[in-house]
Amino acid sequence: MTAAGTGEVPAFPGPPGSVPEAERLARVVLSCGVEPGDGKTSSLIRQIGAERTLEQSLVPKPDSGLPERLAEVDPVRQLEQAARCGIRFLVPGDPEWPRGLGGLDDVITLQGVGGTPPGLWVRGPMPLTELAESVAVVGSRAASVYGVEMTRAICDHLALARVPVVSGGALGIDFEAHDATLVSGGATVAVLACGVDRVYPAANRRLLQHLAAEFAVVSEQPPGSIPTRPRFLARNRLIAAITRGTVVVEAALRSGALNTTAWAEALNRHVMCVPGPVTSYTSRGVNHWLREGRGTVVTHGAEVLELLGSAGERLVEEPRGEERPRDSLTSVEQHVLEWVPVSTPAAVDSIARLSSRHVRDTDSTLRRLHAKGFVRFEAGGWRLAPDV
Amino acid sequence: MTAAGTGEVPAFPGPPGSVPEAERLARVVLSCGVEPGDGKTSSLIRQIGAERTLEQSLVPKPDSGLPERLAEVDPVRQLEQAARCGIRFLVPGDPEWPRGLGGLDDVITLQGVGGTPPGLWVRGPMPLTELAESVAVVGSRAASVYGVEMTRAICDHLALARVPVVSGGALGIDFEAHDATLVSGGATVAVLACGVDRVYPAANRRLLQHLAAEFAVVSEQPPGSIPTRPRFLARNRLIAAITRGTVVVEAALRSGALNTTAWAEALNRHVMCVPGPVTSYTSRGVNHWLREGRGTVVTHGAEVLELLGSAGERLVEEPRGEERPRDSLTSVEQHVLEWVPVSTPAAVDSIARLSSRHVRDTDSTLRRLHAKGFVRFEAGGWRLAPDV
Repeated sequence: MTAAGTGEVPAFPGPPGSVPEAERLARVVLSCGVEPGDGKTSSLIRQIGAERTLEQSLVPKPDSGLPERLAEVDPVRQLEQAARCGIRFLVPGDPEWPRGLGGLDDVITLQGVGGTPPGLWVRGPMPLTELAESVAVVGSRAASVYGVEMTRAICDHLALARVPVVSGGALGIDFEAHDATLVSGGATVAVLACGVDRVYPAANRRLLQHLAAEFAVVSEQPPGSIPTRPRFLARNRLIAAITRGTVVVEAALRSGALNTTAWAEALNRHVMCVPGPVTSYTSRGVNHWLREGRGTVVTHGAEVLELLGSAGERLVEEPRGEERPRDSLTSVEQHVLEWVPVSTPAAVDSIARLSSRHVRDTDSTLRRLHAKGFVRFEAGGWRLAPDV
Repeated sequence: MTAAGTGEVPAFPGPPGSVPEAERLARVVLSCGVEPGDGKTSSLIRQIGAERTLEQSLVPKPDSGLPERLAEVDPVRQLEQAARCGIRFLVPGDPEWPRGLGGLDDVITLQGVGGTPPGLWVRGPMPLTELAESVAVVGSRAASVYGVEMTRAICDHLALARVPVVSGGALGIDFEAHDATLVSGGATVAVLACGVDRVYPAANRRLLQHLAAEFAVVSEQPPGSIPTRPRFLARNRLIAAITRGTVVVEAALRSGALNTTAWAEALNRHVMCVPGPVTSYTSRGVNHWLREGRGTVVTHGAEVLELLGSAGERLVEEPRGEERPRDSLTSVEQHVLEWVPVSTPAAVDSIARLSSRHVRDTDSTLRRLHAKGFVRFEAGGWRLAPDV
C-alpha cells in the first residue's frame, strides 16, 4: 500500500471537526482488503483504532492472504477514483454516518457475519442522515402477485408519509419496494452486496442507475467489488441496522429476507411481518416467524407507521369492520330484531315475550323493521329477512 | 309447571350416585324458561342450587314474563318427549357432563352472555366425555376457497390423530370442519343455537342428521327452540368451553367466529389462528387478532396437536424449508462455492484468495462443481450457474 497518513495536505479532509485523515485512509484500506462482516476486525478497530488495526493486519501470517491484499491498496487513489465516479466514503464520526450502525458494535454474529463496517461507499445525492427514520422493506426474489400488491401498498403509504424505504435492489419484493416508493414520490435507498458502481442484478439497471442519480446506493464493499453469497449476508445486516424496522413481505423458509429480519431482531429493531396464505410457498417463512412470536403482524402501511412512531404518534384507528345495515336502527329496533327468529316465523306475542316488551310496541316495531327490509311476515309470523 | 320432585318413583334417575331427581327436573324447567347465557340465573343456581333458584324465579315480578314461562313447563313431560326423540338431558354431576363447562362459572360475560347452562340437551350416541381432548374449528359462513382448503387439511389431520372436532353446524367453515372430519373417519359434534331436534341451516340437513345419528348434536336450548342472534352468542361460549382450544380459520372483522375465539381467550383455552392474505376480507379478523397478539399462528394440523399436547408430546418438527441442491455438496465444495461470483466471472486465483485455499485445490473443486452443474466457466473465469 501507499502509506496512509503521511501526506501533509489532507487529500480528503472530510467535514470540519471530523475524523483524522490517517484514520479515514486506514479505513479505506481495511474496507478494500477485509471481507465485509468480519467481526474480529471490526472489534479490533473499536478497541485500538483503524490505524493500529491496519498495522497489525499488515504483519504477514501463514495461511492468510490478508496482509498481501491490504498492501495492494492505495487508499488515496481509491478515494480519488471513487470521487470521480461521484462516490463518497463515509466513516464513523462523519455527520452523514448512519447512527443505527452503532448497534452492530454490540451484536453477536449471525451465520459468521457481524460487526460495524470500516466505512460505507455511497453513490448519490441523498444524505444518509435522511435515513434516520427509514424502514426496510424486504422479501423474496420470487414474489407472488400478492407479495407485489402488499409491497406496493405499504411503500406507497410510507412514501406519502415521507418515510424513506431501504431495500436491497434485488428482483422481486426489493424491486417493487423501490419502484412503488419512487412512483409515489418517496425517497428510497438500495444497499448492495457489490460495489455501488456495479449493476446487479442486470435486470434492475434502470432502477439502480436512477437511485444512484437521484437518491443513494450504499455498500460496504469498495467500487468494483462483485457480489458473493457471504457478501449478501453481510449486506443484510446493514439494511437492518440503518433502518428503524424491517417489514418482511414474503419469504420462503430459507429466504435471505429472513436473514435481514433476523438482524432486525438481533438489533432490537421492529420486526414487521405481512402474513400470507399458509398454502403459499413465499409466505411460509413469514408465517413461521409469526408462529414463533418473533414479529408483529402488519397489514397496512399505517400499521408500520404506528409501530415506528413514538407512543401516541400516528395511532392507527382500530379496524371497525364494515358498517352493517343493522347499525342504522334505533336501539329499540335493534333489541326487537335480536329476538326475531332466523328461519321459522314466530308470532308477535312470542317475540314480545322473548324481548320483554309489550305486544303492541313489539308489533309496531316489527312493522317498522318490515318497512326497512329487515324482517319478513310469513305464515302468520315474523322471521329475519335473508342477509340481515 | 307440574311440581318437580314430588313423585315417589324417579322418572329419570340418572346414572348411579348422580344428581337428585328434583334437582334435575328443576334444571329442565330453568333450561326451558330462561334464555341461554343468563349469567345471573347461572350464578344463583351455583349459590343456592337449582331447586331454590326455580322457587325464587317463580315468584311473580312486574315486567318479567319469566315466572309465567317457567310455570308452563312440565319437566317430566319434557324429558319423556325428548327421550322419545333420542334426546337426553345432562346436568352438572352427570358423568357425561363436559368438564370444560366448569370454566364458565368464573368467567365474565361477553356481550351480555355468560354462565354455565342449567343443562345440555344431547342427541346422538357419542358420549360427551369423548370431547375432553377435542378442538373447536370455527370460521366464516362466507368461506373462501383458501379457508375451505385450510379447514379440511386441519380437520383431516385432527381426525387421523383421533382428536374430535367441535363446531357450530353452520354453513362455510363449520360445515367443512364437520364434513372433512367425517370423511377422514374422525368424530365430530355440532353445538347448536336451536333445539337439537331442529335443522338449521336447512342446507345442512344431511350433515346434522348424520351427526345426530352417529355422533352428537348438543344445545342448551330445549328441543323445539328456534335460533335467534343472542342464542348464537350463547352457543359460542359452549363451543369454546367444551374444547381445549379453538382454531379460527377465517373470520371477517365482525364475524361471530371471533366471538367464539374471544370466549376461548377468556376461558384460557388455546386460541389458534390461521393467517391469511391481508387482502382477503375473510382473513381480516384473524390477522387482526394475530396483530394484537391474541392468538398463536397455526399453519398445519400438526401445530394444533402440538399446542394441545402436554409439554413434549406431539412435538412438531421445525419446518426446514426445501432441501437445496447445495446441501448435497461436501463442505469444501460448499465453501468454495460461496466465493464464486454470482454474475461476473472471476479467475481461479481470485476465488482461491477469497476462500483462503490453495489455487490447485480451488481449481479442482471448481471443476467438480462444474461437473455437478453449480458453476459455469465463461470468459476465462468462473461464475455461479443460474438458480444455484
